[in-house]
Amino acid sequence: MLSAFGYVESHREHCLEGLMRLLRQPSISTLGLGLDECAQLLRTEMESVGLAARIIPTAGSPIVFGERRVPGARRTLLLYGHYDVQPVDPLDQWESPPFEPTIRNGRIYARGSGDNKGQHFAHLKAIEAVLATAGDLPLNVKVLLDGEEEKGSPNLAAFVREHRELLAADYVYTSDGPYHPSWRPIIRCGVRGILFIELEVRGPNRDLHSGNWGGNVPNPAWRLVQLLAAMKGPDERVRIPGFYDEVKPANALERELVRLIPLDEAQICRDLGLEALSGEVGLSYYERMFFNPTLNINGLGSGYVGAGSKTIIPSVARARLDVRLVPDQDPDVIEGRIRGFLEREGFGDVIYRPQHRMWPSKTPADHPFSQAITRAVGAGFGEPPIIYPLSGGSLPDYVFTRILGLPSLMVPYANPDENNHSPNENLDIASFFKGIRTTIAVFHEAGRV
Amino acid sequence: MLSAFGYVESHREHCLEGLMRLLRQPSISTLGLGLDECAQLLRTEMESVGLAARIIPTAGSPIVFGERRVPGARRTLLLYGHYDVQPVDPLDQWESPPFEPTIRNGRIYARGSGDNKGQHFAHLKAIEAVLATAGDLPLNVKVLLDGEEEKGSPNLAAFVREHRELLAADYVYTSDGPYHPSWRPIIRCGVRGILFIELEVRGPNRDLHSGNWGGNVPNPAWRLVQLLAAMKGPDERVRIPGFYDEVKPANALERELVRLIPLDEAQICRDLGLEALSGEVGLSYYERMFFNPTLNINGLGSGYVGAGSKTIIPSVARARLDVRLVPDQDPDVIEGRIRGFLEREGFGDVIYRPQHRMWPSKTPADHPFSQAITRAVGAGFGEPPIIYPLSGGSLPDYVFTRILGLPSLMVPYANPDENNHSPNENLDIASFFKGIRTTIAVFHEAGRV
Repeated sequence: MLSAFGYVESHREHCLEGLMRLLRQPSISTLGLGLDECAQLLRTEMESVGLAARIIPTAGSPIVFGERRVPGARRTLLLYGHYDVQPVDPLDQWESPPFEPTIRNGRIYARGSGDNKGQHFAHLKAIEAVLATAGDLPLNVKVLLDGEEEKGSPNLAAFVREHRELLAADYVYTSDGPYHPSWRPIIRCGVRGILFIELEVRGPNRDLHSGNWGGNVPNPAWRLVQLLAAMKGPDERVRIPGFYDEVKPANALERELVRLIPLDEAQICRDLGLEALSGEVGLSYYERMFFNPTLNINGLGSGYVGAGSKTIIPSVARARLDVRLVPDQDPDVIEGRIRGFLEREGFGDVIYRPQHRMWPSKTPADHPFSQAITRAVGAGFGEPPIIYPLSGGSLPDYVFTRILGLPSLMVPYANPDENNHSPNENLDIASFFKGIRTTIAVFHEAGRV
Repeated sequence: MLSAFGYVESHREHCLEGLMRLLRQPSISTLGLGLDECAQLLRTEMESVGLAARIIPTAGSPIVFGERRVPGARRTLLLYGHYDVQPVDPLDQWESPPFEPTIRNGRIYARGSGDNKGQHFAHLKAIEAVLATAGDLPLNVKVLLDGEEEKGSPNLAAFVREHRELLAADYVYTSDGPYHPSWRPIIRCGVRGILFIELEVRGPNRDLHSGNWGGNVPNPAWRLVQLLAAMKGPDERVRIPGFYDEVKPANALERELVRLIPLDEAQICRDLGLEALSGEVGLSYYERMFFNPTLNINGLGSGYVGAGSKTIIPSVARARLDVRLVPDQDPDVIEGRIRGFLEREGFGDVIYRPQHRMWPSKTPADHPFSQAITRAVGAGFGEPPIIYPLSGGSLPDYVFTRILGLPSLMVPYANPDENNHSPNENLDIASFFKGIRTTIAVFHEAGRV
């Protein structure tokens, strides 16, 4: 392990050059831009570090898959990452062009630097370093690179179901997202699921003059407001029957881990320009984030709210909603309850449009794999990680825990101010190398449990 | 009167050419386009028909004012119109360019043809016809042309207050809008007022990831929904205390006039693609339109409802609302009650942004002026008008009835399918000439009451 660390130290330029090459290749999945080219580049990169690699088509962007089978290895580790990136607008807010990686102040600025090219590239460089110094890896490694994560990975679950044998492994390891605002490393033992939907209320077949028609024609914006107000009260409690049925409180270990996560609510309020946080009463900050589902309005759209005025009865009103699901909740079941609620409350004509869904995912924080990864992160970062028994966001981690039945952990390698999904996305170069070292340590620790 | 009708008949080409010249001049007030040029053109036109004309600056577009004082005349009639027009987008839906007036199927297609150039130009041509055939007018005439009606006439009330003497008159007469869908002429004895506002709820200082923050951060879209749901119930009844305090039921004459207005609710539903109309229970169609105020959502905007997905807690949520006010309601008073409601219901932090307002206006249908105009419209159109004791929309008519204290009536000259505010706006040429004849008859009748 230490010799591999040494290889990394003596090949810093080589590692950075490879990453810059990858970052120069646009790969915006929502625009269908550069995905095939990026997949080709990664297959070549996988082969150059010592993996047998191939590109596997899906109904959307291709998957890049690489593996190395090590004679006599006890364990197999499946590494997950994604090579697609977010769109770059607003382009005028970038200080350097998003696909011309530029180093400033010890960071690489480029779209995809943190999310997620820099992180899965650290996995590949770790493989290279171990192979160059130890002859072979201490375990079998498989690398699965998704080309549609920024679109909600619509084809990943089907791919995993159809390739159970190819993906057979003992553990799954993902590096994505930023670590703690204090710059301490973190381990995420799970994620909330998501059910993302659109509700559309239809009124008259065209926008109507609100003076000539107001008072006689049903207004879909009012109807949407009435529906939404029936779904959740001012107390933040969701009123859809059964919504909380499968929700379980945190166990003793989870409560203890949550207690150890640094939290400064006053600082959060200052950062966000809020007088106070809010949420269901009787729950703490992390209970609300990890162990309680939410029903959130992402967007409302109806009629006209632009410059000038348009006094109309709108023809259509839409809301986008996401439900964040905690362990044991199932998006299909929750969807059925929402649709039943619409029917029973007299909103059966409202158009319900499912957008995408992910199941929640959780690996126990006291699983032997979790303990091994805790040691590895300590070795790679030089300080012990904060352990999140769950996290608030949603990743398609359920395809590993739920479909493949494997323990799966997530260790972010990006700095907390990586600006993922925003202009001036960047990756702290020191964090990149900590990521490579951590991955080397993960191979070492996971090979032994 | 008959010889003036004859003049019009023998000068059809001349009248149309003058209108085409006026329509070729763009005058889009919301874009500040061509207003001064159009005002100059109208001053010249006023002078050529025999008025003393001038352009009077305001804080916005100028007003064009013309008058003819007739020695010994008993009465003075003030004619109101507006020379500004709506924007032309979507331009690709026009069959001929909006500022290149084109005659097809007996109609002039051009922006402003119906709304309102064709209608006030009919007033001017009526003056020309009477002067050419009778030597002078049977009453004093003043013509006030607004350049900002399509923006809500923000400077008209101040102008009227500052020019009471200039505008001194006995009656006010306006031609705007379309007549009845059956092509029967109509007289509008009043309009509803309007209070147009924006409500804005602020949340965090930027859009936030709904997974990482959902459950802990107040969502302004939810708050807006709760506020709006508190303002009006599913029964369409507005819950703001005092909202209906000044509302009076129709009197016996108004009820009788409403009974005579043709109404086919089933046909309206088919036209609008609705299963049923809606509204406050216990009120008929025209009671809802004329004698009951409405609180209407014109627009909702928050977060993202475009293509693809953005799972966020929005930073801001906005609603645009218009209140249509019936006679005796005052927008300032209603505004006070809405603001009081916000304070008392715990929404004092919501940003209340007044947009614009107009008071309601009503002239009794049995006023001698109303009777004179009824006779004039019958003579001009060749069939008796439908008399609307009020109408649903809002025009700045209150500046005449409320500020100047004058009776004021509105007689539309445009065909019901004029497409005002839409592509392919047009004016039926026969309707234009009926308008000129009607105006001649109005001079004749109003001069005698």
